[in-house]
Amino acid sequence: MSFKSLFQNILTKKSFLCIGLDSDIQKIPGYLNKYKHPVFEFNRMIVDATAPYTIAYKPNIAFYESRGKEGWHELELTVDYIRKNHPGIFLIADAKRGDIGNTSEMYAETFFKIFDFDAVTVSPYMGYDSIQPFFNYKNKWVIILALTSNKGSDDFQMLRTGKSETLFETVLKTSSTWGNKENTMYVVGATHANMLVLVREYVPDHFLLIPGVGAQGGSLEDVFEYGKNPNCGLIVNSSRAIIYAGTDKDFDQTAAQKASEIQGQMEKLLLHLPA
Amino acid sequence: MSFKSLFQNILTKKSFLCIGLDSDIQKIPGYLNKYKHPVFEFNRMIVDATAPYTIAYKPNIAFYESRGKEGWHELELTVDYIRKNHPGIFLIADAKRGDIGNTSEMYAETFFKIFDFDAVTVSPYMGYDSIQPFFNYKNKWVIILALTSNKGSDDFQMLRTGKSETLFETVLKTSSTWGNKENTMYVVGATHANMLVLVREYVPDHFLLIPGVGAQGGSLEDVFEYGKNPNCGLIVNSSRAIIYAGTDKDFDQTAAQKASEIQGQMEKLLLHLPA
Repeated sequence: MSFKSLFQNILTKKSFLCIGLDSDIQKIPGYLNKYKHPVFEFNRMIVDATAPYTIAYKPNIAFYESRGKEGWHELELTVDYIRKNHPGIFLIADAKRGDIGNTSEMYAETFFKIFDFDAVTVSPYMGYDSIQPFFNYKNKWVIILALTSNKGSDDFQMLRTGKSETLFETVLKTSSTWGNKENTMYVVGATHANMLVLVREYVPDHFLLIPGVGAQGGSLEDVFEYGKNPNCGLIVNSSRAIIYAGTDKDFDQTAAQKASEIQGQMEKLLLHLPA
Repeated sequence: MSFKSLFQNILTKKSFLCIGLDSDIQKIPGYLNKYKHPVFEFNRMIVDATAPYTIAYKPNIAFYESRGKEGWHELELTVDYIRKNHPGIFLIADAKRGDIGNTSEMYAETFFKIFDFDAVTVSPYMGYDSIQPFFNYKNKWVIILALTSNKGSDDFQMLRTGKSETLFETVLKTSSTWGNKENTMYVVGATHANMLVLVREYVPDHFLLIPGVGAQGGSLEDVFEYGKNPNCGLIVNSSRAIIYAGTDKDFDQTAAQKASEIQGQMEKLLLHLPA
């Protein structure tokens, strides 16, 4: 998906919500186990109910991998279903990959060719040649971890790497020269909303993928206040707070209600996009 | 596998070689395509031929993932085959994972419970809580990226993070307090053999997984000279230089010959283990 189409979808749907499909077979309603592919069935119902309110879905690959080839198959079914039934959705593989060049080429092939994802999350630790292979696909995106939402983000990401610069800033500064706003986004956790002002000094025009609103405690208003740009520039993810909002047979409607609430908040915020 | 068993295997086999199963369906001998599971067949033949010379195998997960559920299935077949037919082999999932706590738990489950790997490689960028879940499994190992073998390792790993310290040193110093030499190893590329002296200042007792000998150009002698400790402390990986040494029907025997040569060099080096 192009930068332009992504922004257009945000304006059309009045939403910059991404729903994380962290679909855990231990947590989905038990009655779904009667289906051959319970996690796919869960995803299908969540997606059909919430699609009006969201511009993106983000399967968390760990939850599928942990079930071996059956999990991998349910991921395939999920991606295919969304592509066929909900055109215009931005699909993110939350995979946190990154390896030497010939291996990253394989990862890019996995997520962009075998699966038809629009974007994949990657760790910057191994540097340029671990990320470059993802740039070989037109209208596909790499989403680089900058400042993550977890407690451990303090351990290394906040290390001082220069007189007045920390590691995540160096990652932003350096890696933003490798690609551009049409093929690169950054992960910045909502739990660090006050840092978004600093992030915008390095990447004013890029989209940011913001996890950590909801279960992890970040604030949507703060994220928008400090992180927005004229193209919105934000994709805010919520996973558990939406997909596990309900536990009964009408879990999909409960999820839709929760997604609709967030979309409503986003619609109001989008009235204040800078010119 | 315990630390003690690992060292015992090195002494028994007179080898600290790990063979990387970067098994690419585009590169394996064409006649294998007549089998239902060509990559598994390739791995099976490579393993049966090379097992006398190696203490470990390291499937590179990207090469399996990139073929969707079929690739994932061939990985399962490979791990099961090695476990049944070659007891005492140390099995490393080269996955470079790492995510927030609840997701890293899923990755640990994948590689330690669904698959019976001994170890998994992880990226340190997200800090403690991204790595801690791997410590919950007895006699299983986490192998943390410290200084990788690729060119991009200069981009961030060599950044100065203190007066006389770089990022990979801080990673060693900090993360070595999270676990111990019985559950943690580090990746240090053979292309940085001269840095091994420095690495040993931080982690004198830990095992190091050393990629980059062979196709990437590192020297085995230098690695041993600068990196060894009284428990050997080294697992040196070679992937492409062994598994693709031959291209004909006797590719397995060519691979065995190459592995045997390296084992022979290692046997001589092991005579010089420090007391």
